[in-house]
Amino acid sequence: MAVNYPTGKKTAQKTVNRANLGMTLESDIELTNQYYLEKNIAVIYKKPTPVQVVSVSYPARNKAKIVEAYYKTPSTTDFNGIYKGYYIDFDAKETKSKTSIPLKNIHAHQIEHLKRITDQGGIGFLIVYFQSYDEYYYLPFDVLYDHYLESLKGGRQSIPYTAFQDEGYPIKFGFNPRLDYLRVIDTFVIPGLKQSHYCFTNK
Amino acid sequence: MAVNYPTGKKTAQKTVNRANLGMTLESDIELTNQYYLEKNIAVIYKKPTPVQVVSVSYPARNKAKIVEAYYKTPSTTDFNGIYKGYYIDFDAKETKSKTSIPLKNIHAHQIEHLKRITDQGGIGFLIVYFQSYDEYYYLPFDVLYDHYLESLKGGRQSIPYTAFQDEGYPIKFGFNPRLDYLRVIDTFVIPGLKQSHYCFTNK
Repeated sequence: MAVNYPTGKKTAQKTVNRANLGMTLESDIELTNQYYLEKNIAVIYKKPTPVQVVSVSYPARNKAKIVEAYYKTPSTTDFNGIYKGYYIDFDAKETKSKTSIPLKNIHAHQIEHLKRITDQGGIGFLIVYFQSYDEYYYLPFDVLYDHYLESLKGGRQSIPYTAFQDEGYPIKFGFNPRLDYLRVIDTFVIPGLKQSHYCFTNK
Repeated sequence: MAVNYPTGKKTAQKTVNRANLGMTLESDIELTNQYYLEKNIAVIYKKPTPVQVVSVSYPARNKAKIVEAYYKTPSTTDFNGIYKGYYIDFDAKETKSKTSIPLKNIHAHQIEHLKRITDQGGIGFLIVYFQSYDEYYYLPFDVLYDHYLESLKGGRQSIPYTAFQDEGYPIKFGFNPRLDYLRVIDTFVIPGLKQSHYCFTNK
């Protein structure tokens, strides 16, 4: 699913025309992760899309060709890894809406997964792209979870754009890294974290 | 690849005949992770096998059928997740040899990945199954890495069985969990870990 990005930004080295690059939110995050990896900042990967393989043929020795397979629903989120000893886990979503992102875009099993992660002391969140505003937000899991619980009680079935402005953190789009979400974690998330079990067991 | 397990063990509830179950090392670890998940002990998953999709057909509306795809070499290890706030990352290997496991069974990119993980404060290791002895071992990454560096200098190209006995930790096979590798982490790994960056930033 291609995203219509606005016209590019100029840097000293190169003109980045995002429309021409045909970049998507996902590939922008993958480029960011690649930057983090190369700079030894963090080790965060996108998990492969799970595929149910039904039939494989061997047109040549040692060369397996999958001839029948189906996409499976992932049971977790798309991205995970480690940063400064913290377990990081998130998913990326985008919406064309100007007012909100529907909660149906976020699967219940992804929310349950992120709940387990944060219960274990990990950092869970969403990166949400509002196409209409060309704005990216970091949404902490607890904000997502509050809205999810509200929806289960019959309340609002979406997270309003205003929640991102009030309780999320903007991520600026840049050349390299594209979407520096670890800056949000450094500035706003880590300082607020409680001591982990880890620290106590090592005293 | 099916593994010939010895005859089963009896428990009060059920006879576990591993030969009949056709279990492999990988599925034993997956069952263990499932146990950890259900008991809220840890959140650890096997990553899907990466597949390069070349061609997809749509025999029915909204039903994508992959008709040409190939297996890709994974760039990381098979398993990762979180336990008590620690990032956990490992791979599972098995060998029929009585004397050693060849280092060629462990890809260089997997070793580099585990190096990055442990440098970031994560817990990296291998679970190795010696089929001849029906023994499972937890091998800490630093032991693996020492042998790997030695092999690069033209030394021994395998990790001897004795290294597992001397520097690894046995994992007992059980009914549920099958392979309780977190017990090794609790008993031998966590007590030896240095304080993470995490703890200092929160003081």
